[in-house]
Amino acid sequence: MNSTTMQIFWTLICSFLVIMMQVGLAMVATGFTRAKNAGHTMATTMMIAAIGALGYWAAGYALQTGTGAFFLSDIPAETLCIFVFQAMLVNIAATVPTGAMAERWAFKSFIVYGFFMTMFTYPLYARWVWNGGWLSQLGRIYGLGHGVLDFAGSSVVHMAGGVSALAGAMVIGPRMGKYKGDGTPGAIPGHHIPMAIIGCMLLFFGWFGFTSGQAAIGGDFQVGLIAVNTLLAAAGGAFSALCYMWFFYGRPDLSLSANGLLGGLVAISASCAFVNPFAAVLIGICAGILCCACVFFIERTCRIDDPAGAISVHGACGAWGLLSLGFFADGKYGNGLNSVSGTVKGLFYGGASQLAAQCCGVLACFLFVFAVMFTFFKVLDRITPLRVPEEVEFEGLDQNEVSVVAYPDFNTKSRR
Amino acid sequence: MNSTTMQIFWTLICSFLVIMMQVGLAMVATGFTRAKNAGHTMATTMMIAAIGALGYWAAGYALQTGTGAFFLSDIPAETLCIFVFQAMLVNIAATVPTGAMAERWAFKSFIVYGFFMTMFTYPLYARWVWNGGWLSQLGRIYGLGHGVLDFAGSSVVHMAGGVSALAGAMVIGPRMGKYKGDGTPGAIPGHHIPMAIIGCMLLFFGWFGFTSGQAAIGGDFQVGLIAVNTLLAAAGGAFSALCYMWFFYGRPDLSLSANGLLGGLVAISASCAFVNPFAAVLIGICAGILCCACVFFIERTCRIDDPAGAISVHGACGAWGLLSLGFFADGKYGNGLNSVSGTVKGLFYGGASQLAAQCCGVLACFLFVFAVMFTFFKVLDRITPLRVPEEVEFEGLDQNEVSVVAYPDFNTKSRR
Amino acid sequence: MNSTTMQIFWTLICSFLVIMMQVGLAMVATGFTRAKNAGHTMATTMMIAAIGALGYWAAGYALQTGTGAFFLSDIPAETLCIFVFQAMLVNIAATVPTGAMAERWAFKSFIVYGFFMTMFTYPLYARWVWNGGWLSQLGRIYGLGHGVLDFAGSSVVHMAGGVSALAGAMVIGPRMGKYKGDGTPGAIPGHHIPMAIIGCMLLFFGWFGFTSGQAAIGGDFQVGLIAVNTLLAAAGGAFSALCYMWFFYGRPDLSLSANGLLGGLVAISASCAFVNPFAAVLIGICAGILCCACVFFIERTCRIDDPAGAISVHGACGAWGLLSLGFFADGKYGNGLNSVSGTVKGLFYGGASQLAAQCCGVLACFLFVFAVMFTFFKVLDRITPLRVPEEVEFEGLDQNEVSVVAYPDFNTKSRR
Repeated sequence: MNSTTMQIFWTLICSFLVIMMQVGLAMVATGFTRAKNAGHTMATTMMIAAIGALGYWAAGYALQTGTGAFFLSDIPAETLCIFVFQAMLVNIAATVPTGAMAERWAFKSFIVYGFFMTMFTYPLYARWVWNGGWLSQLGRIYGLGHGVLDFAGSSVVHMAGGVSALAGAMVIGPRMGKYKGDGTPGAIPGHHIPMAIIGCMLLFFGWFGFTSGQAAIGGDFQVGLIAVNTLLAAAGGAFSALCYMWFFYGRPDLSLSANGLLGGLVAISASCAFVNPFAAVLIGICAGILCCACVFFIERTCRIDDPAGAISVHGACGAWGLLSLGFFADGKYGNGLNSVSGTVKGLFYGGASQLAAQCCGVLACFLFVFAVMFTFFKVLDRITPLRVPEEVEFEGLDQNEVSVVAYPDFNTKSRR
Repeated sequence: MNSTTMQIFWTLICSFLVIMMQVGLAMVATGFTRAKNAGHTMATTMMIAAIGALGYWAAGYALQTGTGAFFLSDIPAETLCIFVFQAMLVNIAATVPTGAMAERWAFKSFIVYGFFMTMFTYPLYARWVWNGGWLSQLGRIYGLGHGVLDFAGSSVVHMAGGVSALAGAMVIGPRMGKYKGDGTPGAIPGHHIPMAIIGCMLLFFGWFGFTSGQAAIGGDFQVGLIAVNTLLAAAGGAFSALCYMWFFYGRPDLSLSANGLLGGLVAISASCAFVNPFAAVLIGICAGILCCACVFFIERTCRIDDPAGAISVHGACGAWGLLSLGFFADGKYGNGLNSVSGTVKGLFYGGASQLAAQCCGVLACFLFVFAVMFTFFKVLDRITPLRVPEEVEFEGLDQNEVSVVAYPDFNTKSRR
Repeated sequence: MNSTTMQIFWTLICSFLVIMMQVGLAMVATGFTRAKNAGHTMATTMMIAAIGALGYWAAGYALQTGTGAFFLSDIPAETLCIFVFQAMLVNIAATVPTGAMAERWAFKSFIVYGFFMTMFTYPLYARWVWNGGWLSQLGRIYGLGHGVLDFAGSSVVHMAGGVSALAGAMVIGPRMGKYKGDGTPGAIPGHHIPMAIIGCMLLFFGWFGFTSGQAAIGGDFQVGLIAVNTLLAAAGGAFSALCYMWFFYGRPDLSLSANGLLGGLVAISASCAFVNPFAAVLIGICAGILCCACVFFIERTCRIDDPAGAISVHGACGAWGLLSLGFFADGKYGNGLNSVSGTVKGLFYGGASQLAAQCCGVLACFLFVFAVMFTFFKVLDRITPLRVPEEVEFEGLDQNEVSVVAYPDFNTKSRR
């Protein structure tokens, strides 16, 4: 029994908890879409875990780590747990767009997407930040703080997923009937709100594995602080989204409060080891408000149709998470990270250079992921259509695409 | 790597598991209420986690521990994990009344309640039992055994929650239509029994974190026994409730069996480290029967309307849990607890003084929590009404209170 | 703090995760049956956990271990965690037949079954493989490799459960209306596909505790490999089932893909510590295809009615899991297991004798469990009918058998 064993155990347990995020995302996406597509949404959010595991095993891990370990050949037994943890993360990132492109995505093109995302896009950006790539070297080489820091993946996992969701939603276009002739959006409420809320709570559960799991991977143990910050940011996000809607629209909104909770969790992921609990609450509060505002902006101003709010929750709050580290890092932690001596200090603790690095991270994530994924979706659409035929969308995708009827014993309305 | 690190890890993992109890409580309360209020019940059971975390961070933890650590200022990094665990517990306690007051509680007053419960009522009683307060000193000063012992919170978490639920349900009054003119209760069955049962099973899952997590906090390691007792008490409770209903009413009752399972878990929480497995089965069996009997007593004799059975499951079985330690503690464990030398012995193992202490605990919990919460709810009702307007209750709270329709794609009946 | 403490903690955490498999099985079985029986299916899948825990505590554990520890008397504190883990496993095995016999099983005979399975059938077969019984000695005595090896229970838990399900489904007969006069099967689709899929994902989550938990019990730590193999076999199974249906039937089938995922997990359980990741993917792929083919074979050729696919997923894939170890074990692990020196080698790595042992295991499991359970169900049916009366089955079992209406607020169709 030694500390390596302990690290293996910790990393594995946290990996297992992250699977519950997968379950949560499946429930959120399905709950927030219509009954006629419930089977299809479940199918994409479940199958992405299988596709992602295979794709990441075949090539993604090798590309991200630069080890040439295609098909996990020749990796030492001690690092297999790292693979498990990372494979869970890549699956989370790849699941995000399924929420934004739900209710119209053809299964065949979805599968191609799944392999592309987990074998190429995600691994490459992750390498830049986590495995010694150029974003991690911005500090050592150009003096920008410690280079881009993203402790648990606000950008690597969530913003990358959210930006892919944005590209995908733009290319695939809005659901039939979402926008009227004059461009005003109509509401298409989700068919099973309790399912979506339970999904959010399962994400809340799994997120503690997501943030805490990085502690042992990095070999450090300030995991108590990480857990506290995760809890408080989630609370701040849920509560601020609740109050925001109450204040501006006259009553609380359950769906947006749940999204606020997730927004807080997304945002704190980058900085959970670097900030104090007070900052975590503030980061969460801002994320909750940002999340609400962004949902309306995406839907009404941009006229992009995102059934599950994935772009706002994961994309916008992911960007805010990366930036917030540049504001709130309190200089107590991070000595030597990315080969830069000294601890990590944000703008409010005496340094603008870390914030500059974080801005580079946001820009790089947006530009790279958006360019790659927008191009990918455009090209893919030429080869095999992204979108199901009109009559299938009208009828619901379940029977045609995944051979099920979600609720055969219930009298359901087929909303259009 | 040392034993402190190990304790931090263990406490954190168990804390994370407790979150699943939160999910379970949300599903139980929602499943046992009507479709027209499903969103509202979900909203209270989810938002209490956010409210509780903020309230406990701001003041509750400081009050409970007497450290003055408001907003977690100046607490050492090693004890942050204790905060996380305790914050999960306070949220469980505060969630209990949402089940009893469901389908009629105005959201605004619910939020005030959330902060009051987690910043004042819970921390104060918890301090008395767990943080050196007077109930823990009854042994050292007055010779009553080891003072009040409540290993994992039968009273601190569950009975406190259940008594608050009782006070709240009394002040808010029964749901419209629950009692006919002559006072006989009508059945208002829950709208989604599978959801409620899955919730019970998630509680069963999370409960192992709830009881086992205290092992490392206390620094001892008889955690195998704790887990065995947790399992067997749950089994005893579910099975005895099943048999009780079968024997007296001619057939098993799924809802009450599930409540019996929870009752067994509530009851064993106080004594899981102090009793042997045989006693755990007995404690569970009694809890299952008590739970069934109490549900009828509350509904029919007291005419108090408690949709989720929270008063019986958490209140009554919590009291029984505290007492049962005074009967069954087998004298193998607890040397030196609360500054009293010698192990803990219940009535059946040679001593009545521990039982006397446990009785004091039950009385103190009931009197203090009931007095405070009844007064609180009465006063609050003057300031902002506890209850939604009649027409909102009639229509369902979802749209008016939390801006959602839970099941827009399903043809639902709006039962009154 | 020492390695024993660490092993206790690891075993307990993994035990807790296995509870989520129980939740998952409950959701799968309920989701794949009809709304009119949802409460009853939930009741059997929940109550089996209570019955199993009591039965295994009373006698099963003593029988399996040969220690005479009836009612857990006189077992050392360090081994209590083993009891907890094993109790979770026996419950999983005992739950499997509830899926195959759902929608027609009388509650009284179900309870008798529960005690019989967990006090006798399971413990005996488990003893033969895991606790020094004759199957484990085939290597030492007859030179058949290391004797039957089943690391985490492909046969002990799943095949034993699946074969019991087969016996039960044969004795109880198909659901009313399942087969027309000429013997052609009609489809009786499940009433809540999202519930079933979420259940599969919870099983996926819990399975990591199921396979990894054995690592510490055995005292070895190649747990990273175990987790990788668990992940990849699940992915292979889901993906191959998806492709199989797409190829042969023109479109993916969500239900069978989910069953393929489970089939991969069942299959890898025996060999997860003995094979490399590439073999894990192959084992999973074969399991996914086997699962689909077997579902049709059981339904159409054998005319056995198995609503949840339990016989195929647990029985057939369990047998394949046991055999696959005999093909793919790569000789890197297992030195000294079952008192045989040298590592474990499958057919593709130079030895047929391990495969011979595995074949004996499959045969023994099938013959013993089928003979015992078929006889048991036949005899039991004489004493108290296995099956509910025709009018109860017609109406739905919920009200008559477990006193609930699953969805009183929804307009449901009562399909026959």
